[in-house]
Amino acid sequence: MNRSLISPRTLKGFRDYLPEAMIPRERLMETARQTFRSFGFAPIDTPALEYLEVLVGKGSEETDRQLYHFTDHGGREVGLRFDLTVPLARFAAQHIAELKTPFKRYHIAPVWRGENTQAGRYREFYQCDFDTVGTESVMADIEMVVVIDALLSAIGIDRFKIRINNRQILSGLLEGLGLEDRSVAVLRALDKLPKIGRERTAAEMVSTAAITAAQADAVLRLSECSGTPEEVLESLSRITSGNATAATGIERLAQVIRGALAGGARADRLCLDVSIARGLDYYTGVIVETFLDDLPGIGSVCSGGRYDNLAGLYTKQHLPGIGASLGLDRLLAALEKLGSLPKVRATAPVLVTWFDASRRDDYLTMGARLRGLGLGVEVFPEPRKLGVQLKYADEQGMEVAVVAGDQEWEAGRVQVKDLRRKIAIGVDYSHAAPEALADAIRAVLEESDRPRIAGDLPAV
Amino acid sequence: MNRSLISPRTLKGFRDYLPEAMIPRERLMETARQTFRSFGFAPIDTPALEYLEVLVGKGSEETDRQLYHFTDHGGREVGLRFDLTVPLARFAAQHIAELKTPFKRYHIAPVWRGENTQAGRYREFYQCDFDTVGTESVMADIEMVVVIDALLSAIGIDRFKIRINNRQILSGLLEGLGLEDRSVAVLRALDKLPKIGRERTAAEMVSTAAITAAQADAVLRLSECSGTPEEVLESLSRITSGNATAATGIERLAQVIRGALAGGARADRLCLDVSIARGLDYYTGVIVETFLDDLPGIGSVCSGGRYDNLAGLYTKQHLPGIGASLGLDRLLAALEKLGSLPKVRATAPVLVTWFDASRRDDYLTMGARLRGLGLGVEVFPEPRKLGVQLKYADEQGMEVAVVAGDQEWEAGRVQVKDLRRKIAIGVDYSHAAPEALADAIRAVLEESDRPRIAGDLPAV
Repeated sequence: MNRSLISPRTLKGFRDYLPEAMIPRERLMETARQTFRSFGFAPIDTPALEYLEVLVGKGSEETDRQLYHFTDHGGREVGLRFDLTVPLARFAAQHIAELKTPFKRYHIAPVWRGENTQAGRYREFYQCDFDTVGTESVMADIEMVVVIDALLSAIGIDRFKIRINNRQILSGLLEGLGLEDRSVAVLRALDKLPKIGRERTAAEMVSTAAITAAQADAVLRLSECSGTPEEVLESLSRITSGNATAATGIERLAQVIRGALAGGARADRLCLDVSIARGLDYYTGVIVETFLDDLPGIGSVCSGGRYDNLAGLYTKQHLPGIGASLGLDRLLAALEKLGSLPKVRATAPVLVTWFDASRRDDYLTMGARLRGLGLGVEVFPEPRKLGVQLKYADEQGMEVAVVAGDQEWEAGRVQVKDLRRKIAIGVDYSHAAPEALADAIRAVLEESDRPRIAGDLPAV
Repeated sequence: MNRSLISPRTLKGFRDYLPEAMIPRERLMETARQTFRSFGFAPIDTPALEYLEVLVGKGSEETDRQLYHFTDHGGREVGLRFDLTVPLARFAAQHIAELKTPFKRYHIAPVWRGENTQAGRYREFYQCDFDTVGTESVMADIEMVVVIDALLSAIGIDRFKIRINNRQILSGLLEGLGLEDRSVAVLRALDKLPKIGRERTAAEMVSTAAITAAQADAVLRLSECSGTPEEVLESLSRITSGNATAATGIERLAQVIRGALAGGARADRLCLDVSIARGLDYYTGVIVETFLDDLPGIGSVCSGGRYDNLAGLYTKQHLPGIGASLGLDRLLAALEKLGSLPKVRATAPVLVTWFDASRRDDYLTMGARLRGLGLGVEVFPEPRKLGVQLKYADEQGMEVAVVAGDQEWEAGRVQVKDLRRKIAIGVDYSHAAPEALADAIRAVLEESDRPRIAGDLPAV
C-alpha cells in the first residue's frame, strides 16, 4: 500500500500514561476510593460534557477563558467540565430529593482546561474530590481532616502537615473593625504575603483596601499567630477581642482540632495556620491545605473547605457542605521526586517461561493453578529463547520466573528464579499438586515489596 | 439575590450515575482490573481529546458522523475519542520502542459518540478493553478466551457461552472456490443470516456477491456446523476440503479450544460457532463473542479477535495483536434485568449513630477504632434523633447500626442493631478494647452478603 502515514502524536498539553506511570496512578486512585468508602463516602459520576450555561461563569474569568466548548450535533452549546465541583452543584440540585441529605460522595474523574502549558501543568488532569453536602455540622469539618490524614497515611506518606484555618476568624476581625466590606481586597493583599513580605503587604492593604496602618497590622498579626494549637487559639481570641463571629470561628477551630485527634489524626500533623486563604470568594468556614514535610515547595497536595451554598445557581434549596480535593498529579510528581514510586511495568510479579510448543497446554495449566492459589502470573506469549523471556521479565520489573523445560517436566521438578537476587531453586511441581511451587514463589515475593494477591498493584 | 436559576440538567444522551448505579459499575471495573492484572495486563491511559486526523476515517462512516469535534484554542482540529482501539493504535505506534513487544495492556475509559439516542444507548459510555500487541502466537488467542472466562466468573456470572470462530476458515473456503475477492460481499450477506434466514441469505449472496447457488450453499453449510468442538472441526475440514488457509485456521481453532481448557476455562462455556462474524473488515483471525445463557437477546457482552496490523496507519512497524472488550454498560443492564445488582447506596455497612454533642469525640474515636479493625464505618454527620439516623441507615442499605447513649457510655456497653433482621444485642465497649464490638458487628455482616474489609464494595 502506498499511502502516507499519519503522525502518531498527542495534543499539546495532553499526555499518554504508559504502564510505568499508570500503575502508581491507578494504585493511588484505588487507595483513595478505599479510604473514602471506609468512611461511607459513595461514588458518583457525571458526564464529561455539560450544557455550556452550566459551566460558564461558575469558576473564574480564567476558567471561562480556558473552557473547551463547541456546538454539538444537535446545535446545543456544550463544554467539557473544568472541575468536579460545578458538576457536583448541578448534580446535587438535580437529584437531591432522591439522594437525601446528608449526602457524602466522592468523584474521581478527568477535567479539562485549555491553559497555557508549563512544567507539570496539563490540559487534561484528574481530580479526586470528596464532599459532605447538606449539613453544617462540625462533625463533617472534623471528618474532612480525619479523611485527609487517613488518605495520605494509606498512600504511604508519613511526614505531612494539615494546615487548618477558619475564614470566619478574619471575617470577624474585619467586622469588629467595621471593615466587612473590604474583605475581598484585604484577602487579595493577604494572599501575597508569602511572596512580597509583611511590609509591602501592609502597604498594599492600606492603598488598595483603604484601611489604616493599624488595621493592616491587626490583620497581619492574626495571620502570623503560631505555636501549639492552644497558643494559636488564645492569640486569635486576643486579637479579635471578643467579636462574636470570630469567637464562633475560633470555637469551631478548637472543636476541629480536638475532634480530629479523637478521630485518629496524628497530633504532629495538625496545625492551625491563619495565613492560608484558599482562593478568595468560595469558602466561608473551615479551610485546609496539606503540605509534605519533605517537599513543601510543591504546594498543597490536598485542599478544601466549607462552603455556604453549593448549588445556589441551580436550586433554591440551601445546600451547605464541606469537602476537599486530593491533587493526584501533584502528589504523583512529588512521590516521583522523592523516589518513592516503584519502577514497575508489570502487574503480575511472576512470569511462567516456556519454549516447547508441544507443552503449551501444560504452561497454561500451570499459570491457571498458580492464579487459583492467589498469585498474579503471566505466561510469556511466545515460546522464545529463555534469555529473551528473562530479559522481558527483568525489564517489566517482575520478581520471579518459573522455568520448566523437557527434563524438568519429566522429573516433576521446576526451577524458581528470584530475579532480583539472581538465585534459583528447584521445586516439585505437578498440576495436581501446585502448592509447593506457589509456596516457593511466595517465599521470594515475601522478600520483595510486591503484593502477593493476584491483581493487586505494587504499593507506592 | 434576585437572579434566575439555571436549570440543572444533563445533555440528551448523557447520564449521571447516582451511588446506587455507580457502586456496581465501579465494582465491575475493579473486578475487571484485578482480573486483567492477574494475567499480567498493565493499565494505560490516553487523552480524551486527539488530533482529528488521528480519529477520522478509522472506524466507519458512522463513527465519523458521530464524532464530537471542534477547533481548540490553538486553532487545532480536535475530536473526542469514539473508542479505545484507535487511541491504542496511535499509542502503540508512538511508544512501541519504549514499550517493547509483546505488549499487554488494558484500558478502561469513557468514549463519546453523538449517535441517535435510543433505549440503553448513550452518547458517553465506558469501554473496557484488553489486548496483546506484537505477537501472532496462538498463546495470546488462547489467553483472550481464558481471560473472558475468568472475568465473567469473577463478576459472578455462571452461565454463559464464549462463541469462537476463525475468520481464516471462511477465507480459506472462498479461496478454494476462487472467490477471495468476494469476501466482503459474502460476509455482508452472511451477517444477515440470523435476521432474514437461510433462503434469503443465499439469494442475496447470489445476487450481490455474484456467486453460484452451490457456492452460497457451501458458505452457509460452513456457518451452520454445530455439535461438539470435535464434530465441528471435522465438518469444517470436510467442507473446506483441504484448502491450506482453512486448514491453518481450523488447526488454530483446535489449539484455542484445547488451550483454553488447559488454561482453566470451563468446557460447557466454550463453543465453536462459525456463524459469528464480528463486523466486516477489521479482524483477520480468531474472533469471539460471549452470550449470557439467561439473556442471550441482549447480544454479546464481551467480544474481540485477532487483527493483522493494529497501527498501520501510523507506523511501518508491523504490529499484529489480539484483544477483546467487555461491554460494561450492557452487562450492567443485563445484571439489573436478572436482579443480580445489590440495592445499596452505602459504601460502609456500619453506621455509628450519636445524639449527644458533648460526646462527639467519643463517637469519632469509636469510628476510628472500628476502621482500624478493618470495618467500613460511617459516623452520622449530625446529632439528630435516633429514628432519623436509623431511617438513613436503612435507606442507604446499611447492615448494622451502633447505638450508644449516655447510659450506654456510662455502663461501657453499647447496642449493635442488625438492620435487616431487626434485632439488637448489647456488647461491651471501651476505646481501649474495641474488639468485642468489632466481632459483634462482623457476626452480623457474616449473615449478609456485604463485604467486611473496609473500603470494599458489595459484590454484584
